[in-house]
Amino acid sequence: MPDEQRYIVKLSCPDRTGIVAAVSSFFAEHGGWIIEADHHADPVTQKSFIRQEVLANSLPFGVDELRERFAAVAQAFDMEWTIHDTAVKRRVAILVSKQDHCLNDLLYRWRSREMDFDLVGVISNHDDCRSFVAWHDVPYHHVPIDKNNKDAGFQQVDGLIESLQADTIVLARYMQIMPSWICAKYPGRIINIHHSFLPSFVGARPYHQAHARGVKFVGATCHYVTEDLDEGPIIEQDAIRTNHAHGVEAITRVGKDVEKAVLARGLRYHLDDRVILNGKKTVVFG
Amino acid sequence: MPDEQRYIVKLSCPDRTGIVAAVSSFFAEHGGWIIEADHHADPVTQKSFIRQEVLANSLPFGVDELRERFAAVAQAFDMEWTIHDTAVKRRVAILVSKQDHCLNDLLYRWRSREMDFDLVGVISNHDDCRSFVAWHDVPYHHVPIDKNNKDAGFQQVDGLIESLQADTIVLARYMQIMPSWICAKYPGRIINIHHSFLPSFVGARPYHQAHARGVKFVGATCHYVTEDLDEGPIIEQDAIRTNHAHGVEAITRVGKDVEKAVLARGLRYHLDDRVILNGKKTVVFG
Amino acid sequence: MPDEQRYIVKLSCPDRTGIVAAVSSFFAEHGGWIIEADHHADPVTQKSFIRQEVLANSLPFGVDELRERFAAVAQAFDMEWTIHDTAVKRRVAILVSKQDHCLNDLLYRWRSREMDFDLVGVISNHDDCRSFVAWHDVPYHHVPIDKNNKDAGFQQVDGLIESLQADTIVLARYMQIMPSWICAKYPGRIINIHHSFLPSFVGARPYHQAHARGVKFVGATCHYVTEDLDEGPIIEQDAIRTNHAHGVEAITRVGKDVEKAVLARGLRYHLDDRVILNGKKTVVFG
Amino acid sequence: MPDEQRYIVKLSCPDRTGIVAAVSSFFAEHGGWIIEADHHADPVTQKSFIRQEVLANSLPFGVDELRERFAAVAQAFDMEWTIHDTAVKRRVAILVSKQDHCLNDLLYRWRSREMDFDLVGVISNHDDCRSFVAWHDVPYHHVPIDKNNKDAGFQQVDGLIESLQADTIVLARYMQIMPSWICAKYPGRIINIHHSFLPSFVGARPYHQAHARGVKFVGATCHYVTEDLDEGPIIEQDAIRTNHAHGVEAITRVGKDVEKAVLARGLRYHLDDRVILNGKKTVVFG
Repeated sequence: MPDEQRYIVKLSCPDRTGIVAAVSSFFAEHGGWIIEADHHADPVTQKSFIRQEVLANSLPFGVDELRERFAAVAQAFDMEWTIHDTAVKRRVAILVSKQDHCLNDLLYRWRSREMDFDLVGVISNHDDCRSFVAWHDVPYHHVPIDKNNKDAGFQQVDGLIESLQADTIVLARYMQIMPSWICAKYPGRIINIHHSFLPSFVGARPYHQAHARGVKFVGATCHYVTEDLDEGPIIEQDAIRTNHAHGVEAITRVGKDVEKAVLARGLRYHLDDRVILNGKKTVVFG
Repeated sequence: MPDEQRYIVKLSCPDRTGIVAAVSSFFAEHGGWIIEADHHADPVTQKSFIRQEVLANSLPFGVDELRERFAAVAQAFDMEWTIHDTAVKRRVAILVSKQDHCLNDLLYRWRSREMDFDLVGVISNHDDCRSFVAWHDVPYHHVPIDKNNKDAGFQQVDGLIESLQADTIVLARYMQIMPSWICAKYPGRIINIHHSFLPSFVGARPYHQAHARGVKFVGATCHYVTEDLDEGPIIEQDAIRTNHAHGVEAITRVGKDVEKAVLARGLRYHLDDRVILNGKKTVVFG
Repeated sequence: MPDEQRYIVKLSCPDRTGIVAAVSSFFAEHGGWIIEADHHADPVTQKSFIRQEVLANSLPFGVDELRERFAAVAQAFDMEWTIHDTAVKRRVAILVSKQDHCLNDLLYRWRSREMDFDLVGVISNHDDCRSFVAWHDVPYHHVPIDKNNKDAGFQQVDGLIESLQADTIVLARYMQIMPSWICAKYPGRIINIHHSFLPSFVGARPYHQAHARGVKFVGATCHYVTEDLDEGPIIEQDAIRTNHAHGVEAITRVGKDVEKAVLARGLRYHLDDRVILNGKKTVVFG
Repeated sequence: MPDEQRYIVKLSCPDRTGIVAAVSSFFAEHGGWIIEADHHADPVTQKSFIRQEVLANSLPFGVDELRERFAAVAQAFDMEWTIHDTAVKRRVAILVSKQDHCLNDLLYRWRSREMDFDLVGVISNHDDCRSFVAWHDVPYHHVPIDKNNKDAGFQQVDGLIESLQADTIVLARYMQIMPSWICAKYPGRIINIHHSFLPSFVGARPYHQAHARGVKFVGATCHYVTEDLDEGPIIEQDAIRTNHAHGVEAITRVGKDVEKAVLARGLRYHLDDRVILNGKKTVVFG
């Protein structure tokens, strides 16, 4: 069943009576076979969040007509919504610098089809990973970022994102701060892995900070990138035990394993339409 | 909101189109305000599982009429179902032997109202815990189990369960094997904590077995009791790291913390109507 | 063996050749039977840390003579050191406010002898826990802290610590900030449980902060209290998964379980002489 | 410091007085600078286990003379011992079938120098991984195992191990059962990753077994291979949460991440001389 074509609706709207019924009845009317249905009501923001996954071939129409018809339901409940067709693969661009453990991890998950997306390109401010990426027949774009003229570099990065038609941009230990205008241009589409358990150790060299503080766990955080550095909505986190015997090098080593796992899980949630924004937070139907 | 009266419907039925819609529309028609809604479809057993939680005061009738009206929906979809009224507290009896760490843990969660149930009595084959239970103003029943005449003892245990009108029986390290006829009499109502990560180390002295095998984690399993010892549907599990420096005593000590946590979580899921049987397995809407 | 009388030496000193040899040879010369021996060298502070545990009856002299004789070894290597006799139980005072989950947990571990110390008294700025503590035959001291005259209250607390001859003071969710002069008077002897994964969420209401930030794990930190609030050397930490469905109340509930576990482990390390200060950090021979 | 040449002594011997002193004094006499020292005494087998790590350039002689001189100490205490020179890299051969997630993971750790060993070759009963391994400039040996003549295949495998002078053989999801004579020929040198939390789910298709049993965590076990299938001494384990929504495919996916992490940690312990056999169990100075 996981390989069958499905439509995934996800939405948020002001909370009230009848939302789950409206969505599920809409599908039922047309014979839609629900294979997953999730709902969350947030008493703080007084919003409801819904995700439903329906077998495509159980409906008598395609995704375009589905969207058209669903728009009426959505309007009645003032929903922010999307419907994703799993037959249309997400287009992912990966940005990386020199640390390539997350890149290697994602490339493996991609080539082994554990994660099902189109990898449209790898962009890096260094040339180090070219050969490995090339082995995968994935385009590699070396875009140096000049300390004294960052804007030119990011214009080029943005041009690549556009020409590659990437809908998801993954910062897989990309060690450059994305300029505000790029963050604003791609809301909810840029995913970063930060190598600390946010909000601990924001900013530079978090493993060094963790070592200096003497924490007993180090963690990693996958989050959407917003204009506030390291303040974006958190998608996924995890932490792993460290101890006094671990110097910065050992902390970095064990931390990398958490980074890889957290980024992979966070990206999977995103690609599977399991993440819905709730202000500065996320609802994740994991 | 957690303290407001709610009705919780949980059900399973053969999978088909329209189940989520039928349940949620039923509530919507009557103005029912859903605060939680979960759904799972199992492609193996081809069944759907649903749990919905509705604010009681959003409906124009009480739980009895709710059940009457819902029966029609249930029948149409061949559902096995229950509706629980959170204003009616679950009646829990705890069975314990000499090891009282789980008992202490549950008593605390009960008296601090972290878990909201009626503790109708503690039954033990020893008298050791009497004073501590008495401090809580909870009835304590000492029912010795005679090795040569177990049946008499368990007749007495069963009589107590009946007279206490317990709907949930918790074996909090009760070191007697429940006879088949009691297991059969209370299906899905007896919850055990086994001090191993099942199916590892079934039977007696699992911590000794774990020590002898040299495992690097020890665990605990909360499960419904069936006639097949240690084979009942698993509700919750967890494990904690151990190492070569841990003798049986240390393994037992760290294991106890896992037992307490796993039993408490498993029992909470049960009391909150989050567990639905799926053959020999469970669906847990955690 | 765990119940046999042991002497535990722990020490730190400038790193050099021959430290492990000096300590272990000292014991070997006198027939000392080592049952545990740990060593850590910190390349940053260039210090060595050692803990050795020796069977008391393997030595031809008692703890006083042991200390006298060991002093010569210690002096030669410029060691900061202690030798603890396990026959002399640690004297622990617990400070608590209204939240009593950690108190209940510690009382259980104490009365079940899972943790072996003398519980000399419970001090609280409220009277709520009196009856439960009294059941344990443990003295309960109600010392209100007047917002406008905190010093008087803390003078009384300090007087109690002195008269109870407590060598370890546990802040088991004591919701008053200890004044600097008490922190300074009992260095390395006051242990706090903070209900966040430090350095995240310092200060008040960390669970509310965690909820607002939308983190996916909440944690707890056991640390020595110093004059810098929430900045003391960390002894132990842990974290547990939370999610969007958890409001502040649920986060608080799951967090409590982590608090209990982390405080119990941290206190155990302290009582077993497994913690050695290394500047603002700790070495924990767990 | 991690890159400095070190000598690592590890040993086990009947427990008695003076073992730690004998080893550490031997080093101290010759000016040996200890950077790590571990000790464990097992009251069951009445043996002591020691690992000490010494800076090579602090000693006035090389590894050969070190071994000669240490032999006298070892003999006096009836030690089983080895001394490893970190300048001599371990020679590792990886055996793999079609599932290549562990292979990819180890190749990355090797090429990024996170793990420091000589990868002397990859042996597989399939040809699938040839191109990826070739990109790494690592020799790839395709040795089909004929169902009806397994012995011929394993003779070839053994011949390769010999000609490659591999001292460590890693079964990275090698789906063939090693014959007894190979297990016996390389005791403590063949490391397997089993995709279950042993002793749960021995044998074939453990993820299917886990799914059928309805466990709430799936795990992985890294162990030395002995003639008793899945019964070898456990080096490392871990587990990850699963739930009712996970079919076999999802369990397999999350399980793979545990397999990779557990194998990498177990292999690291082995390569760093942190594992000492204790009967059918291991002492791991992690």
